[in-house]
Amino acid sequence: VSALTWVDVPTGSDFTLANLPFGVADVVGVGRRVVVAIGEQALDLEALRVAGALPLEWLTEKTFTSGSLNPLMGVERRQVRELRSELTQLLQDNSARARVEPVAVHDQRNLAMVMPVAIGDYVDFYSSEHHATNLGRILRPNAEPLLPNWKHLPVSYHGRSGTVVVSGTDVVRPHGLVPRGDAPAYVASEALDFELEVGAFVGIGSPLGSTVSAQAAPDHLFGAVLLNDWSARDIQAFEYQPLGPHLAKSFASSISPWVVTIDALHSARVPAPEQHPPVARHLQRHEPSGFDITLTVSLSTALMRERGLVAAQIVETSFSSMYWTLSQQLAHITAGGASLRTGDFFGSGTVSGPTPSSVGSMIELTWRGDRPLRLPSGEERSFLEDGDEITMRGWTGEGDTRVGFGTVTGTVVPAQSTDF
Amino acid sequence: VSALTWVDVPTGSDFTLANLPFGVADVVGVGRRVVVAIGEQALDLEALRVAGALPLEWLTEKTFTSGSLNPLMGVERRQVRELRSELTQLLQDNSARARVEPVAVHDQRNLAMVMPVAIGDYVDFYSSEHHATNLGRILRPNAEPLLPNWKHLPVSYHGRSGTVVVSGTDVVRPHGLVPRGDAPAYVASEALDFELEVGAFVGIGSPLGSTVSAQAAPDHLFGAVLLNDWSARDIQAFEYQPLGPHLAKSFASSISPWVVTIDALHSARVPAPEQHPPVARHLQRHEPSGFDITLTVSLSTALMRERGLVAAQIVETSFSSMYWTLSQQLAHITAGGASLRTGDFFGSGTVSGPTPSSVGSMIELTWRGDRPLRLPSGEERSFLEDGDEITMRGWTGEGDTRVGFGTVTGTVVPAQSTDF
Repeated sequence: VSALTWVDVPTGSDFTLANLPFGVADVVGVGRRVVVAIGEQALDLEALRVAGALPLEWLTEKTFTSGSLNPLMGVERRQVRELRSELTQLLQDNSARARVEPVAVHDQRNLAMVMPVAIGDYVDFYSSEHHATNLGRILRPNAEPLLPNWKHLPVSYHGRSGTVVVSGTDVVRPHGLVPRGDAPAYVASEALDFELEVGAFVGIGSPLGSTVSAQAAPDHLFGAVLLNDWSARDIQAFEYQPLGPHLAKSFASSISPWVVTIDALHSARVPAPEQHPPVARHLQRHEPSGFDITLTVSLSTALMRERGLVAAQIVETSFSSMYWTLSQQLAHITAGGASLRTGDFFGSGTVSGPTPSSVGSMIELTWRGDRPLRLPSGEERSFLEDGDEITMRGWTGEGDTRVGFGTVTGTVVPAQSTDF
Repeated sequence: VSALTWVDVPTGSDFTLANLPFGVADVVGVGRRVVVAIGEQALDLEALRVAGALPLEWLTEKTFTSGSLNPLMGVERRQVRELRSELTQLLQDNSARARVEPVAVHDQRNLAMVMPVAIGDYVDFYSSEHHATNLGRILRPNAEPLLPNWKHLPVSYHGRSGTVVVSGTDVVRPHGLVPRGDAPAYVASEALDFELEVGAFVGIGSPLGSTVSAQAAPDHLFGAVLLNDWSARDIQAFEYQPLGPHLAKSFASSISPWVVTIDALHSARVPAPEQHPPVARHLQRHEPSGFDITLTVSLSTALMRERGLVAAQIVETSFSSMYWTLSQQLAHITAGGASLRTGDFFGSGTVSGPTPSSVGSMIELTWRGDRPLRLPSGEERSFLEDGDEITMRGWTGEGDTRVGFGTVTGTVVPAQSTDF
């Protein structure tokens, strides 16, 4: 792909010609449209289609106007590639500029990005060996940190699809039952955390009663986003036996608004960590099946913003260290014959690396409060306080071939009254 | 409600004039329609609307033709009552018969009932004290059967909404990882079970960041169905630590096609079991908050059908023994601020009573195989075999005031090949 386009793409932009991620925006005066990011601009695909600039016979008037990416996600991967190829040519063709720019190009600052996908089911994994080991050490200090199943299957559970929210949505501190002396009390969580994850969307579904192997999984993967799987550690500790987390995870899960296609992430492919013991056949993978995506987390407190201090970067890590890959995760979801639907979503699990600052959650960064974070404002944090804003970033490559996710951000706001 | 209607309602019918449950059917030559059961007939509500027989100004051409009950479930409960009242009058009015019968009445045998609801999220509970105690005794024989959280909150987890299927759908025996000697093997489950539950649908939703108390919950409950939450006990035992069940529960969950409204179940209301210790304020309930619904399970094997033997009733129990009520369950889902959407679904958890034949699963009936069931064919069962058909029934009241759910049925079919 030549990097030359008539749209100005600033140095360091996540949204180069090599990326072309899809999102859904409220376009003023027009309605909800599928849009594609390029530099600091966005292309309205329905406007391009109506103008005759996208000569693909499978496009319909519904493809870009349903209010979600789902109609586009359900087409063949080959067709999505055709569409991205057409867009690339259009953006490289200076003679197209006069025709396209007035009708289809918007400054991203003028767009309200909304939830890009109507999510079916949401499954969350636990697939970083560093993260699972850290949590095991913190929560069960006298036992083997990894449970017997961990290296045989990607441990996972269903989350709440209805509370997956788009970046920028405030996160209300949740209430829940937490032990207080003799009995549990229904109180606002005092151990609110983030979890740094990559989320993946299913494109083409699969029928009930069949299994998609890890090797066939890429045909069913549409793309990926950043995911902050907010967690309430105190609520989780009391509720989770024996059926797993529920309220500790269901109050909000924030995603970045731009869905980066699996094709755009091709240049990020790297071999994933070797697996011992060997895994069952449906989970066996073709290498390279990992993705070398750099991920960061920044924290800004209300006091820091008041003082004009920039957000502090508190985490930098890489997605390449994940023990279980996105393809294995998709395969696992179907291993018992569960069907996949276009728009199904799954989270990688918290991405943690081997070093103290490459871990993807506060409970690991502060070792459950034993080592509070010191911030540039002089404040300390064991868990998140009201007013704290968490921003995650992710990208691979650099310069003209950089493929980035943009950001997912969310601010913690005070718990609601519980006067019923 | 007078029981007199011009439709013939056979003695013992679940679908009396006091019931009027809603479903969705493929009507030959017409398409997918909202229908209402009466006796062995069903009313096509769109046909009634078009004929001018339902003079309710809030009805639109979308209410009964979207392919699901969701548009109807999202209106005010008062409006659903109005609709049921109009239908009652129509069915009592002999002078309406000539106008209605030719255009809107179908024999249920001629209808293909489909999934009645586009489900958002599905939460499954664990709310029978007898069931939780039995499972604790079977799975953790040397420990307290109830875990410390059990009497403080209705323990629950998210299930897979995409694999909730309508009665009559075959259930493919799932594969999963199960310990075999030194290492787990990916094999067809050898411990396939049913779980007898009542499922409830959310009507009017609630916003993110707010909590619906148990006392306010009835305003958000649309209706109920029978639920068979098929479970693979061997897959579950290996996978479930520490994040709960996933593949053991996600291969199929079968529901009955007729949604019985909460209003129709009013006559079944009884006080629920007293709760000690007292529960937190958002979970406190107004009595009567339980439902006295009789529930049964029948099993028919392939050999029994071959020999012309009728299905054997293996369970009879009552929903009135549930420790946590549907209203408390709905409140719990929102206790951390999670939003509700019209069409969200939750399962009561397996309904088990105090006696050996009033328990709602095979693992309890056979005490994990220690006491196999003897069937009229001479066969024995510890868990379900291929060809086994499970049918669940539920009803309250009798004669003209009987309100029943019909049946949810499903047959186990052999596991698929795993040649990838």
